[in-house]
Amino acid sequence: MSEVRVHNLSISLDGFATGEGQALEAPFGHAGERLHEWLVGTRFFHAEDNLSGGTQGADNGFAVQHNPGIGAEIMGAGKFGPPGWQDDPDWKGWWGPNPPFHTPTFILTHRPRPSIEMEGGTTYHFLDATPAEAVAQAREAAAGADVRIGGGPTVVRDFLAEGLIDYMHVAQVPILLGRGVRLWDGLESLEQTYTIEPVSTPTGITHLTFTAKR
Amino acid sequence: MSEVRVHNLSISLDGFATGEGQALEAPFGHAGERLHEWLVGTRFFHAEDNLSGGTQGADNGFAVQHNPGIGAEIMGAGKFGPPGWQDDPDWKGWWGPNPPFHTPTFILTHRPRPSIEMEGGTTYHFLDATPAEAVAQAREAAAGADVRIGGGPTVVRDFLAEGLIDYMHVAQVPILLGRGVRLWDGLESLEQTYTIEPVSTPTGITHLTFTAKR
Repeated sequence: MSEVRVHNLSISLDGFATGEGQALEAPFGHAGERLHEWLVGTRFFHAEDNLSGGTQGADNGFAVQHNPGIGAEIMGAGKFGPPGWQDDPDWKGWWGPNPPFHTPTFILTHRPRPSIEMEGGTTYHFLDATPAEAVAQAREAAAGADVRIGGGPTVVRDFLAEGLIDYMHVAQVPILLGRGVRLWDGLESLEQTYTIEPVSTPTGITHLTFTAKR
Repeated sequence: MSEVRVHNLSISLDGFATGEGQALEAPFGHAGERLHEWLVGTRFFHAEDNLSGGTQGADNGFAVQHNPGIGAEIMGAGKFGPPGWQDDPDWKGWWGPNPPFHTPTFILTHRPRPSIEMEGGTTYHFLDATPAEAVAQAREAAAGADVRIGGGPTVVRDFLAEGLIDYMHVAQVPILLGRGVRLWDGLESLEQTYTIEPVSTPTGITHLTFTAKR
């Protein structure tokens, strides 16, 4: 059976995956780019932007696992656009005409709209569905490949709580945001169903992998 | 000038340094001993209990730094006893007649009582004081040696917020407690005043050191 995976989910030391005050000009609120500097510096990220260069150390070793084997993504409404994007019929995501997904991409929203075909293989589908229903649809669209849960944190948390995630990679950044949206709320005893392995890299990031126990 | 240090402060992945429901038979609430298993296994901890054996790897390398150079400890009322100990005139801490402090030890409480001299060099002093006042008194008692802030988490947080801590070692344990007392609340941007270095060990613990920037 194909797997449901989370990659490159960055959190602060105090557990916030996004800051306070998300807006069009601040997708991560007061966190700015600080949660993702480690990722932006990697060769993986450079290549996504058709740039050469970037680091090839351990951080890149985690980052590059984002795409291989993935056949569909599921994301929350909060990742797709700033608060209120549902009122803008022309909103097509943050990522321009050729988004970095290159697969069917399911956006969870209580106000679905018709699907949008983008360049590069990404098609946006809008779903009002439970996590389990969304996984079933995405799995079908992925045609045997894996499904990535793209975030944000409340979506990842919901899918974790329902036991729908097989593998998760979290990058813990040594900053304290103090406020925002926490990843870990309501996930008591997650270690009973996942093998958790931490590894710190010389850039100060601690990568945590969660592998579902069978 | 002598330093103010924190050692072996254990937290869960979701940032709780103690669980919910602290009581006489459960000093760390529903966390039980899970936050401290890494410490109990070390040669340092065995030696404190006059036992031989224990691990000598990286975890022990952090653990053993607890005592050298320390001339006094400051702890909160919540570390000294279960809720309500102030109503028991005979309460002398959790640690028996020969406590593991071996120095003057200051307990912060709004209901001070006369000092108690224990075996092995520990004398308990009870202080109704601000963090800065407590550090001044402990520093004097330490006679040039360093002062350890012994916890619990709200006390460490208060001293951090006032910029009174020079060095802190936190051991992050890969479990999710879900509830209890958080260490990180109200400490936004702590990375601006501390150099933070994480290192994960093969036991799954991530040790984080905070060194005040000068």
